[in-house]
Amino acid sequence: MGSFAPLLATVITIAIILILALIVRNLVHRLIVRVVNRAANASPITGRFRKNGAATDGIDALLNERRKQRAETMGSVLKHVASIVVIGTAVLTVLDRLTIPIAPLLTSVGILGVAIGFGAQELVKDFIAGMFMLLEDQYGVGDVVDVGAAVGTVEAVTLRVTRLRDADGRVWYVRNGTIARVGNESQGWSRAYVDVPVAYDSDVATVRDVLRQVAGELWEDPELRESVIVEEPVVFGVEQLSDSSLVFRVSAKTLPVRQAEVARELRVRVKAALDDAGIAMAP
Amino acid sequence: MGSFAPLLATVITIAIILILALIVRNLVHRLIVRVVNRAANASPITGRFRKNGAATDGIDALLNERRKQRAETMGSVLKHVASIVVIGTAVLTVLDRLTIPIAPLLTSVGILGVAIGFGAQELVKDFIAGMFMLLEDQYGVGDVVDVGAAVGTVEAVTLRVTRLRDADGRVWYVRNGTIARVGNESQGWSRAYVDVPVAYDSDVATVRDVLRQVAGELWEDPELRESVIVEEPVVFGVEQLSDSSLVFRVSAKTLPVRQAEVARELRVRVKAALDDAGIAMAP
Amino acid sequence: MGSFAPLLATVITIAIILILALIVRNLVHRLIVRVVNRAANASPITGRFRKNGAATDGIDALLNERRKQRAETMGSVLKHVASIVVIGTAVLTVLDRLTIPIAPLLTSVGILGVAIGFGAQELVKDFIAGMFMLLEDQYGVGDVVDVGAAVGTVEAVTLRVTRLRDADGRVWYVRNGTIARVGNESQGWSRAYVDVPVAYDSDVATVRDVLRQVAGELWEDPELRESVIVEEPVVFGVEQLSDSSLVFRVSAKTLPVRQAEVARELRVRVKAALDDAGIAMAP
Amino acid sequence: MGSFAPLLATVITIAIILILALIVRNLVHRLIVRVVNRAANASPITGRFRKNGAATDGIDALLNERRKQRAETMGSVLKHVASIVVIGTAVLTVLDRLTIPIAPLLTSVGILGVAIGFGAQELVKDFIAGMFMLLEDQYGVGDVVDVGAAVGTVEAVTLRVTRLRDADGRVWYVRNGTIARVGNESQGWSRAYVDVPVAYDSDVATVRDVLRQVAGELWEDPELRESVIVEEPVVFGVEQLSDSSLVFRVSAKTLPVRQAEVARELRVRVKAALDDAGIAMAP
Amino acid sequence: MGSFAPLLATVITIAIILILALIVRNLVHRLIVRVVNRAANASPITGRFRKNGAATDGIDALLNERRKQRAETMGSVLKHVASIVVIGTAVLTVLDRLTIPIAPLLTSVGILGVAIGFGAQELVKDFIAGMFMLLEDQYGVGDVVDVGAAVGTVEAVTLRVTRLRDADGRVWYVRNGTIARVGNESQGWSRAYVDVPVAYDSDVATVRDVLRQVAGELWEDPELRESVIVEEPVVFGVEQLSDSSLVFRVSAKTLPVRQAEVARELRVRVKAALDDAGIAMAP
Amino acid sequence: MGSFAPLLATVITIAIILILALIVRNLVHRLIVRVVNRAANASPITGRFRKNGAATDGIDALLNERRKQRAETMGSVLKHVASIVVIGTAVLTVLDRLTIPIAPLLTSVGILGVAIGFGAQELVKDFIAGMFMLLEDQYGVGDVVDVGAAVGTVEAVTLRVTRLRDADGRVWYVRNGTIARVGNESQGWSRAYVDVPVAYDSDVATVRDVLRQVAGELWEDPELRESVIVEEPVVFGVEQLSDSSLVFRVSAKTLPVRQAEVARELRVRVKAALDDAGIAMAP
Amino acid sequence: MGSFAPLLATVITIAIILILALIVRNLVHRLIVRVVNRAANASPITGRFRKNGAATDGIDALLNERRKQRAETMGSVLKHVASIVVIGTAVLTVLDRLTIPIAPLLTSVGILGVAIGFGAQELVKDFIAGMFMLLEDQYGVGDVVDVGAAVGTVEAVTLRVTRLRDADGRVWYVRNGTIARVGNESQGWSRAYVDVPVAYDSDVATVRDVLRQVAGELWEDPELRESVIVEEPVVFGVEQLSDSSLVFRVSAKTLPVRQAEVARELRVRVKAALDDAGIAMAP
Repeated sequence: MGSFAPLLATVITIAIILILALIVRNLVHRLIVRVVNRAANASPITGRFRKNGAATDGIDALLNERRKQRAETMGSVLKHVASIVVIGTAVLTVLDRLTIPIAPLLTSVGILGVAIGFGAQELVKDFIAGMFMLLEDQYGVGDVVDVGAAVGTVEAVTLRVTRLRDADGRVWYVRNGTIARVGNESQGWSRAYVDVPVAYDSDVATVRDVLRQVAGELWEDPELRESVIVEEPVVFGVEQLSDSSLVFRVSAKTLPVRQAEVARELRVRVKAALDDAGIAMAP
Repeated sequence: MGSFAPLLATVITIAIILILALIVRNLVHRLIVRVVNRAANASPITGRFRKNGAATDGIDALLNERRKQRAETMGSVLKHVASIVVIGTAVLTVLDRLTIPIAPLLTSVGILGVAIGFGAQELVKDFIAGMFMLLEDQYGVGDVVDVGAAVGTVEAVTLRVTRLRDADGRVWYVRNGTIARVGNESQGWSRAYVDVPVAYDSDVATVRDVLRQVAGELWEDPELRESVIVEEPVVFGVEQLSDSSLVFRVSAKTLPVRQAEVARELRVRVKAALDDAGIAMAP
Repeated sequence: MGSFAPLLATVITIAIILILALIVRNLVHRLIVRVVNRAANASPITGRFRKNGAATDGIDALLNERRKQRAETMGSVLKHVASIVVIGTAVLTVLDRLTIPIAPLLTSVGILGVAIGFGAQELVKDFIAGMFMLLEDQYGVGDVVDVGAAVGTVEAVTLRVTRLRDADGRVWYVRNGTIARVGNESQGWSRAYVDVPVAYDSDVATVRDVLRQVAGELWEDPELRESVIVEEPVVFGVEQLSDSSLVFRVSAKTLPVRQAEVARELRVRVKAALDDAGIAMAP
Repeated sequence: MGSFAPLLATVITIAIILILALIVRNLVHRLIVRVVNRAANASPITGRFRKNGAATDGIDALLNERRKQRAETMGSVLKHVASIVVIGTAVLTVLDRLTIPIAPLLTSVGILGVAIGFGAQELVKDFIAGMFMLLEDQYGVGDVVDVGAAVGTVEAVTLRVTRLRDADGRVWYVRNGTIARVGNESQGWSRAYVDVPVAYDSDVATVRDVLRQVAGELWEDPELRESVIVEEPVVFGVEQLSDSSLVFRVSAKTLPVRQAEVARELRVRVKAALDDAGIAMAP
Repeated sequence: MGSFAPLLATVITIAIILILALIVRNLVHRLIVRVVNRAANASPITGRFRKNGAATDGIDALLNERRKQRAETMGSVLKHVASIVVIGTAVLTVLDRLTIPIAPLLTSVGILGVAIGFGAQELVKDFIAGMFMLLEDQYGVGDVVDVGAAVGTVEAVTLRVTRLRDADGRVWYVRNGTIARVGNESQGWSRAYVDVPVAYDSDVATVRDVLRQVAGELWEDPELRESVIVEEPVVFGVEQLSDSSLVFRVSAKTLPVRQAEVARELRVRVKAALDDAGIAMAP
Repeated sequence: MGSFAPLLATVITIAIILILALIVRNLVHRLIVRVVNRAANASPITGRFRKNGAATDGIDALLNERRKQRAETMGSVLKHVASIVVIGTAVLTVLDRLTIPIAPLLTSVGILGVAIGFGAQELVKDFIAGMFMLLEDQYGVGDVVDVGAAVGTVEAVTLRVTRLRDADGRVWYVRNGTIARVGNESQGWSRAYVDVPVAYDSDVATVRDVLRQVAGELWEDPELRESVIVEEPVVFGVEQLSDSSLVFRVSAKTLPVRQAEVARELRVRVKAALDDAGIAMAP
Repeated sequence: MGSFAPLLATVITIAIILILALIVRNLVHRLIVRVVNRAANASPITGRFRKNGAATDGIDALLNERRKQRAETMGSVLKHVASIVVIGTAVLTVLDRLTIPIAPLLTSVGILGVAIGFGAQELVKDFIAGMFMLLEDQYGVGDVVDVGAAVGTVEAVTLRVTRLRDADGRVWYVRNGTIARVGNESQGWSRAYVDVPVAYDSDVATVRDVLRQVAGELWEDPELRESVIVEEPVVFGVEQLSDSSLVFRVSAKTLPVRQAEVARELRVRVKAALDDAGIAMAP
């Protein structure tokens, strides 16, 4: 009977350890949920942006949905990591209480851990980068982004990779940690440019007037106004001066990712107007 | 006889250690199998993709087969690693119980391990990259991919390297860890482009009409429709405006990797149509 | 009763530890606030700059506001870090006093910590870079900056990333740690250049006179003088000498980011003046 | 006599240690031989490749020979490493039993080891890369490969470097660890291309017919068929469309590394055929 | 009373520790001041340079001032670091004497320290680079330098960054650690070059004479001699030989950063002289 | 007297330690000599090479000399390193036996060692690279090599750097560790190429005949045959096909580094032959 | 009195430690001086070089002076490092003997040391690179060198940086550790090249004769022979063969850094000779 007492004590101790581990794990999970939610709602860089950006009022519901998804994605990995730490600690503590020597185990795992640790840097880098990208809401599914390695429409974002589809239909998987800078073309507005090189002996004032008229008509066009173009187009004076040409520029602010369309329309109209006015383009 | 007792105890201890090691190894292997299978089935990035992608219903069996193979490839390495850790720990524990000093052994192995660990980073990086590529099903045998170092058809994927064959018949072995981004041309659709530069004095409306007719005929062609081209081709207006030419673009969405074929057909038809309409190409 | 005494002592010890931790945390927070404020006010590189720079007197209030914001941004991260260290230490000390073995916990956390530490380097690098950028006030919201990866107007600065919007409306997120050098176009003044290539047989003196007159008129223009141009424009002599052309240069110091506008105006006037003087541009 | 007893015990202990070391060393060597042989025979990436590749049946003996050599090369280094670890451990254990303090020795060796370890990374990287290259049989002596730094015929492969001879007779030594991707031109087949630019006003159908005839004759040529060319050559339609030319392409699958020869023959025949048909090449 | 004795002893011990810490700190600060001053005065690379350089006698006072500022900048960081080490040691020793366990604190701080240490490498690199730049006096405020990332006039130098303003008015912040090489244009002298391509059939001797005369007149010009140009300009013979041109070069040593001005003057004079001599420039 | 006994014992112990150190050092030196010699004689990559290479029989004596020198160079560094380890260990052991505490010494040396270890990586890399280069006999004094950073004749090889002299007389010092691949032009043979572009309307057969005759005469030339050219030159058919030219190629295998000479001779003869045959080169 | 005995013993121990430290420091300094001197005198790479190089006999005194300076530069840093190690060890030992706990001090210094160690790698790299550059005497003050980042005349060499002045008068500070390869133009000889493109229909033999005569006259010129040109110039045959030109090359070996001067003289003479012979240069 005397030999049962320590056994019993050991069993009880182990039970307590395991119960405590479960409790701690749950507490940590809840903490993670709360921190992640608060972070997703209060990201400083996003917060300020939304205030200054255009056309953000009507899409609050969408943003809320996106925010919730982001919080879940981030939380899930953190929860896994927390569970592994808590369970690992509990197992080691139990082994210790059973007076089983854990040094050999730690040695094996340690050597392996160091060997893998070096190689896993990139992986951790990808995850950390992905977590902050999500936190800062740099882009979401459907945005057209330039991540350096590829330009295209975002089809999926995970903590490790971003999946884009470019204009040729190619699907790109880009590791988040390799993205040093992201250019998002879908936020606020885009700008359409058309450069118009006319012959050197053209009259500056006349060309400017013709182009201004084109710009004005574009702005008045009911199909384009405000549903595509968000500000009256502007004509910039002589952008370049050479022996053979004067370069004018017409520029229009459009809704995001609509600039190619507007530029095409502008080119057609500019050509027609120059033809009508008898102004030759630079040879 | 008294001297046998501790010997016997030692033998029993060792036997228990070895048996426990085998049990733990089996448990860990089963755990790996389960985790890998679940991961292969529920990869978030693939999951979302399959829903939005085109033409994925009829190939579910193929995907299932691929999924099973991927799970096996991933599981086999993890099982090896787990076995080495468990066996190593068991051996060290046995040596410890036999009161054989393990410090010298650990010293030798440790120095070697550090020396190798630094150099093996790349290897570990390759394996980790390969594991996640498989997990996320970024590409499979038969896909045409752009991995930066080479573009070609995937012939084999292992955890360390991907084997491609490019259009010239060259076989490329690319280490997975050196692939920062992958462009997969075999997912969903591709796009065929033909740029048509016509003389500056051409009439914009006429050219557009001619090209639209070519596009329409291509789409009506029973040999191409839906078996190659997946959407009616589109004619984009003036893409570029210079003193000597106007550039139009005809664009068609095709089945994956069929774009070159469609573009060739488009060029033949565009040339014929322009010749018929008497429109000169830009000099 | 005798068994209560040590329990009571333990409870009191723990209470003291926790109270001390709170006190230390508050002290450290106050210290951080003071240090950060002093640093924000006395950055040597900014201090010297403000003295030599132009047009800095009227914007002191703005700078003060910016300084306060910067101090808050910097302080908030440092406070978080300090809190984690103090709380972590307190928890470990309490566990130690409760004679709970903390070695297994440290082992788990340590292995994880090393694994993450390697991958988190970039993150720490970003934060450190961001902290010093803020401290040195290299740029603020509204400045036009060139950070290598992108050029545009700063929309937000956090410790980890800087958000820019470029001229095309693209929004760029650039990690602070990847910015090796920053070019700020919004400090002090900018310079507008126009290169004027004239035919080789032009008379050097005549051309110089014509250009000087253009420069003088620009400077006399009441709309531009001092509200845009901050110094009388200068004409540089023959910048390049080839068989076919002589290149002159007109240069004007303007308010920051106004150089394109002034250069355009200059080009229009230079063309008119050369036409009047009958001087041909280089073919 | 009493003082001899411990001495004798020590001597016996040392003898046992040394004998055990020899036994362990032999066991490990045998294990290495078995593992390496199995790996060389069952490399997954090679296995799959051989099934799909062309012309592999008759060269099984050659491959077997190559496999044996590879296994030897790999095994020899692993055996050396294993010997060093076993002998080192034995020496340290003996010193320990002789109660000679080994800490100073370990200190000296350790500091040196760390210093060298950092620098030896590249070396270890080279060896690991070489081992996997051999294991996966990426290339062998006689193959024409593109290793990035050089393109040429492999003359020798060791675990550290690969020796190539390029077309100019230059001998290249390339460290295996610096080879991120290998392009092997000697596996399966190569492709010969000839681009034929004809004048814009040529008739598409006529040119295509002429080229198809050339392709057909090449395929019928008994000297080339199947001993050099492995598939009937194909004529691709208009590959490029400009104002001045139409580009056609003739393409033929050949035995590995024979593509230049076939392309030359094709060019001679295409020229003759175009001359006969009176079709002008694009100016 | 007996319980006060150890308390008193502890208090006294702590007082002694703190006093010693202050004394050591002061000693170290004085040591730093002395070492930094000696280093600033006796930098070998600067020392040798000043002897060989031109125009250094009259600016000794300026250099002395600069030297003093540099010594202060360097000393201030070193003093901060020394203070932190001394205070940290004192605090840990006091805690130790109070029998407060410091292991948990060290653990927390250590994990944080390693995590930050990796990321702070760049920062330390910047500071070390800055310290040596100052020590070697590579450049000072007002110098025109090329630091790779940017070229411009130095506006401020701190230990971490250098602030330049380029010719366009852009302000550049360049981290000192990213500057691998510095080109300082403000030390000693600069050289102005003008390349003169003349027609192939020009007489070599005649052209050389004309150019030598221009060079001689420039040197005789009282406005330029020695106040701008520091050596008689030299005419180099045929620098390039092609079918259409012979290229001569006129070169003049000027005061630092005055080369553009001299080159402009040279071009005007060369053109006039060639026109007078009826020598055509190369077409 | 009793106090002398331990002193005497200590002295004897120290003497034994030092004597043992000398013996061990000598043994290790001999071991190094034997290992290095065997390695220099049996390098696998060189061994195989010599068998396949050309013209290696008569230069065995030279190679033997070179081998001996290489063995010496390699052995000397290894001996230094071994001596330092043995002496360091002996000193530490002696200090330990004298009961002098070595921890402070180890601390000082350790901190320094780590600090230097990081920076010395490159140095160790250079030495390891140099050792293997020598071992594999990649190049020797007098060879013309391309090491990436420079191309030239090897003038000296040490373990750290290789000294080359390029064709302009510039002497290059290249660190061995920065050489990722070496191209040795002095092994076996070189190839001389001459590309001959003829007018598009030339007769393919005629041109080929003319060129074959030139090639035959070159081969028959007693001054060149076998003393410079090692194989009959070959004429390759149409290498390139454009609207304006046909490109033929004549290629000759020469002794190493003699290709420029042969190519020059070929060009002179080809020009003469084409002139004689009245064949125009492509315009 | 009894309490003085241990105090006295402690004082004596400390005195002995300090005296020993001074002795050891002096011994180490002497050892450094001897090793550095021997190294500077017996650098293998320089040694061999001097034997083969040209014009080295008369400058032995200069080289000796340079050698002495180099030995001093190298020795001074090593002495500093040795002093710091010896003094640090002595201080720690004294603290230990005074039973002052050194663990807190080591902790503070250690954390700081690791933090700085990472960042100081570059510095150590620079110093090691500088030390070996000096040891191998790669270049000295006055040599014209190409260090990749800049080309110019060496003005100063320290262990950390090399100071160059380029042809434009710019002063470059290049960190020694960033110099992967050095090209020294001032050792032995340089080569002057002039490429002479003549019209395609020129007679090869005539052109060669004309150029050979120019070369011969240059060599006979008493002003140039041996004081500038060190070998008779050579005329290389047809270096390039195109439809429009034949390229000949005249090449002359000159004293170091005199090649530009000789090439200019050659061009003037070649032009005159071709004009005289009525040979046109290629159009």
